[in-house]
Amino acid sequence: MTTGVRRRMGVEERRQQLIGVALELFSRRSPDEVSIDEIASAAGISRPLVYHYFPGKLSLYEAALQRAADDLASRFVEPREGPLGARLLRVMRRFFDFVDDHGPGFSALMRGGPAVGSSKTNALVDAVRQAAYVQILAHLKVENAPARLELVVRSWISLVESTALIWLDGRRIPRGELEVQLVHDFAALAAVSAARDEELGALLRGALQGEPGDGPFTDLAVRLIALAAPPKA
Amino acid sequence: MTTGVRRRMGVEERRQQLIGVALELFSRRSPDEVSIDEIASAAGISRPLVYHYFPGKLSLYEAALQRAADDLASRFVEPREGPLGARLLRVMRRFFDFVDDHGPGFSALMRGGPAVGSSKTNALVDAVRQAAYVQILAHLKVENAPARLELVVRSWISLVESTALIWLDGRRIPRGELEVQLVHDFAALAAVSAARDEELGALLRGALQGEPGDGPFTDLAVRLIALAAPPKA
Repeated sequence: MTTGVRRRMGVEERRQQLIGVALELFSRRSPDEVSIDEIASAAGISRPLVYHYFPGKLSLYEAALQRAADDLASRFVEPREGPLGARLLRVMRRFFDFVDDHGPGFSALMRGGPAVGSSKTNALVDAVRQAAYVQILAHLKVENAPARLELVVRSWISLVESTALIWLDGRRIPRGELEVQLVHDFAALAAVSAARDEELGALLRGALQGEPGDGPFTDLAVRLIALAAPPKA
Repeated sequence: MTTGVRRRMGVEERRQQLIGVALELFSRRSPDEVSIDEIASAAGISRPLVYHYFPGKLSLYEAALQRAADDLASRFVEPREGPLGARLLRVMRRFFDFVDDHGPGFSALMRGGPAVGSSKTNALVDAVRQAAYVQILAHLKVENAPARLELVVRSWISLVESTALIWLDGRRIPRGELEVQLVHDFAALAAVSAARDEELGALLRGALQGEPGDGPFTDLAVRLIALAAPPKA
């Protein structure tokens, strides 16, 4: 029932080990289905000792979620150089790596429910969304987003979440295709808003000026033009 | 403390009255902030009598949510005639009427949290999403949606939810603009997927054939073409 060599760990070291073990279990199955006994067993310690470090399953779940949230937020950080489409595509790849690693736990968290719907877990999820939002504005070189740009960015972030959830439910579409599609979706949603808003239009034109002929944004434009053409007889 | 003339109501009549009163209160403020005392007072009956009909606040909340869910699902039903863009726009108007009427309760529900995150409330929300999904497929005349079409429709539904939530947070963009934008967003997301998928492309072309020159889809196409043109010197 123990993992590796038993030795005395310091308090913080033991806490960090428990968080790691719990995150692994909470990622692979719905948190509702993971027991403290199982976490204790996987960590090679007794159930009472787990309670010595964490008052209950919720506090251990929240600590594991905090670690996952920090990990995910760090994946949004991308050097501010090169074409925007390629930057966003790299972030989407790292996001899907995360979703792939934490599938069942990610689904349970985002779909809500008794075990995962505490105000603290909601605040953690919102903080990750906010981190993504701040990164995107920084790449667009916008400090104070006008309301319509804020809407595009925030609603696209929710589209990314729902796309990942739908992907996890059966994985019927290759994830690489969805990573590109979400980059295209961003351009498409921005274009819809920019079509009615001069300020957004100017921003979008500026952002697309640096796009190479073989980047994802140009690829989208070419494909949309082909789609708009009359069907072959 | 009573509303109107006191008279003896039948059990079902009283239950329905309480649900109506509760829905009104749960819509105007976060359900966390609404007490049974307040519901009793608004219904003109005693607190113990409320408990006679509903074992607790959660069961009354769930009953109120069921009524709201039925109401919302009924708003997705739209005659299957005329251009698709105009149909979808009418549904978006009725959806925003609903969101407007139930703002704080809608936000609290969709953002999750202890009072509203029961598995029953989650199931009710999912049932409304499913009703919307089924209606859209029926209008597209598709019986068994391929995975990529299912993704477009379901992820657009989540985009509608998040757009409504962002709108409720300050109402900084006129809702009429967002109703049109969401119709355009649907076309844009479908076009992004269709650009890579021949089956979806054929479906989209067929759906757009019936669009009039002054409908929302044509309007979008014109605006996007203008956006793609080089900026004026």
